[in-house]
Amino acid sequence: MLEKAKLSEEFPGYRGEALQLLKRAKAEIGDIIRIVKDGESYEGILIPRSEYGDDKHIVVKLKTGYNTGVRITPTTQIEKVGVGAKPTFVPPTLPEQKPTLPKVAIISTGGTIASRVDYRTGGVRPALSASDLYSVVPELSEVANIDAEILFSLFSEDITAKHWSEMAKTIASHIENGAAGVVVAHGTDTLGYTAAALSFALQDLPVPVIIVASQRSADRPSSDAATNLIGAVNAATYAPFAEVAVAIHETTSDKNIVIHRGTKTRKCHTSRRDTFKSVNTTSLAKTTNGKIIMLTKDYYKRDASRKLSLKPSFDEKAALIKFYPGLNPEVIDWHVDKGCKGIILEGTGLGHVGAYCFSAIRRAVEKNVLVAMTSQCIWGRLGMTVYDHGRDLLAMGVIPLEDMLTETAFVKLMWVLGQTKDMEEAKKLLTKNVANEISPRTEYEEAQGETE
Amino acid sequence: MLEKAKLSEEFPGYRGEALQLLKRAKAEIGDIIRIVKDGESYEGILIPRSEYGDDKHIVVKLKTGYNTGVRITPTTQIEKVGVGAKPTFVPPTLPEQKPTLPKVAIISTGGTIASRVDYRTGGVRPALSASDLYSVVPELSEVANIDAEILFSLFSEDITAKHWSEMAKTIASHIENGAAGVVVAHGTDTLGYTAAALSFALQDLPVPVIIVASQRSADRPSSDAATNLIGAVNAATYAPFAEVAVAIHETTSDKNIVIHRGTKTRKCHTSRRDTFKSVNTTSLAKTTNGKIIMLTKDYYKRDASRKLSLKPSFDEKAALIKFYPGLNPEVIDWHVDKGCKGIILEGTGLGHVGAYCFSAIRRAVEKNVLVAMTSQCIWGRLGMTVYDHGRDLLAMGVIPLEDMLTETAFVKLMWVLGQTKDMEEAKKLLTKNVANEISPRTEYEEAQGETE
Repeated sequence: MLEKAKLSEEFPGYRGEALQLLKRAKAEIGDIIRIVKDGESYEGILIPRSEYGDDKHIVVKLKTGYNTGVRITPTTQIEKVGVGAKPTFVPPTLPEQKPTLPKVAIISTGGTIASRVDYRTGGVRPALSASDLYSVVPELSEVANIDAEILFSLFSEDITAKHWSEMAKTIASHIENGAAGVVVAHGTDTLGYTAAALSFALQDLPVPVIIVASQRSADRPSSDAATNLIGAVNAATYAPFAEVAVAIHETTSDKNIVIHRGTKTRKCHTSRRDTFKSVNTTSLAKTTNGKIIMLTKDYYKRDASRKLSLKPSFDEKAALIKFYPGLNPEVIDWHVDKGCKGIILEGTGLGHVGAYCFSAIRRAVEKNVLVAMTSQCIWGRLGMTVYDHGRDLLAMGVIPLEDMLTETAFVKLMWVLGQTKDMEEAKKLLTKNVANEISPRTEYEEAQGETE
Repeated sequence: MLEKAKLSEEFPGYRGEALQLLKRAKAEIGDIIRIVKDGESYEGILIPRSEYGDDKHIVVKLKTGYNTGVRITPTTQIEKVGVGAKPTFVPPTLPEQKPTLPKVAIISTGGTIASRVDYRTGGVRPALSASDLYSVVPELSEVANIDAEILFSLFSEDITAKHWSEMAKTIASHIENGAAGVVVAHGTDTLGYTAAALSFALQDLPVPVIIVASQRSADRPSSDAATNLIGAVNAATYAPFAEVAVAIHETTSDKNIVIHRGTKTRKCHTSRRDTFKSVNTTSLAKTTNGKIIMLTKDYYKRDASRKLSLKPSFDEKAALIKFYPGLNPEVIDWHVDKGCKGIILEGTGLGHVGAYCFSAIRRAVEKNVLVAMTSQCIWGRLGMTVYDHGRDLLAMGVIPLEDMLTETAFVKLMWVLGQTKDMEEAKKLLTKNVANEISPRTEYEEAQGETE
């Protein structure tokens, strides 16, 4: 059973006025309270606050599952309307493992999918031990023989290149140990960056590596955690491809899980369950009723006998600069002077920046910094020979990155700089299609009816 | 007739090997040439190169209308297959102006829509004088009595805050002189930023201000210039709203022109004609067969008697920083130390950045810099009370900007800093809905079926 906190720790993060009000209402963390303020009423579970909390807000978890901070005023009233659930921990009855099923590894790095909300505190804790998994999603035991490992418990915005290296090495060791596929549970925020990183770090894959996430934690009625996880494990176990991919809701309905290529997807909505989209390409596959449907014929085939080539080095001496009107070009100089070896410019349209940035860019190139261009449009391909500014930038030595996503381009730049110290070789590798990060020119654009 | 260039200027931008090859083929700028190289053949109009040109590329305008640079190799062969068109200039016969029609101003700032490609040189020149306009789009004379002005001839990526001020003042003077509406011709690249800037700078508008652009210049078979311009002039003259908006193709077909709110639209494709999308809201209106259909009931109504409030000041001491894994937080310090008064952080997901940036952000806030958050997801609304990192950032004083586009947020920050030196007032103004830059919480999200 969860231990009740001591008196002095009863209201973590609360002080001053807010604390007084809570004590007066005899509310405890975990209780259901109603806050009435200026004629409006907020009802939810009282949850703890972060260490930086002021003394003016009370945070409750609303019925929708979201937390909200209510600012108290002199007339604010608080009423305790229910006693907090004090769940008794019952170890889940584990379904029987079926040793004849293929072995699949689930590596947890953190994020909403790898968490369960503690009803008492509203806090989030990692929950991807094998027993947790089976208790949440017992169906998994019918799909594969799961080997679960908690590698990190990180919000994905805290994940950097060193974590990508660790993930790649861990995945490689599971594959070497005979996994039929690997699932990586990850927060959605920077999942696109990680998916690209693993696509470059894990080459000649024999089996699929499926990154999975959810937008709503498992305690919420609309959670996408279980369906996404089942889809991911299903794909890792049985899909015919051997690539790094992302499994997530295809639409807002629970019916299909779509599988995006790791280098071609990004998070496109802050909260929707179908937040990830394939950009400038079709998706790789989808699962519907447990069946895997390939959406392209052009994929790297599963072959358990293939020898994985692990290339987990990333060089963090790289920067991503989004261009905007009035960008101070000295920021480019600053990065160069700090020892940056490569810069991705997220330019406008077909691959442009203002002419006031040209001399800083020319200086960067002269100092042997790789400067490459992507577009903040997100969709479409660069066309740097169409207008003067594009041609000027090409002539300076700026490298156009075709239809590559900015996030993928930045990750690839770090990876390329981790593979070679020779700048000419790095430049070649940056523009070479390594993991489907560049779509063939004909295929997708023509399907969009926008060629002439 | 266009003068033939002197011998020494006959091949602008060409030198070395490339120049030799062209001279040997007896080709002139404007001629149609065929380049054969490695079994492939490129045919198009020989066009001049920029001053930074190397001696290894020859640039031709292909039949598709796009320019391409062909790298020459020792075996490359060039053949002249046609003599360049040497067009004789015939002044267009202007259609009769109809003084009874409403007066509309067209202000040109540059961009593809305001240009015509010179077939002889492949170069682009501004073409939005009244006579050019009528010669290209004679239908306009049936819609309004046009007063055309060339304000700038700029690639839009060269446009900065001082140009926004000039545009706002010029628009205001046309409105004061009785224009029934104003059209601004602009390049697509940074059109979203300019549309936001004019939305803030022109308040209490009596008539519509329609920004118009095209993705294909008027010389191309698929050009969207004429239809977009007719749609824009139509809306400026007759639309019932008085807001800053953007007129552009709704789909890749020529049928409808969609009108997006100036603060809620961004360029989402490098080359498609329907590149602009309304983000987190429905579009304002569309025109179909010359008819204007409002897509919302909630708009600011046209009222010619209303007094425009011109607020054209922008303070450029502001920065936009896109967060990415491994962002060096010292770049935040650098901006602060450079005297930056405000920073937009384009964070991940619901409004996050890595914890390794927290101390730099705290320092910025302590030094009285406005630090505000948007999401690189683009779609959706921030939710900074959901996870610890969001709450931490709020507690530090980071300002969440709801569902505002990053580009709009950055422009608004510069505008706010141009309106007041009082940082508390600036903070209030930044989060206040000034020009529909923040969508009401209920309306759009619920329509998407993603609330519970």
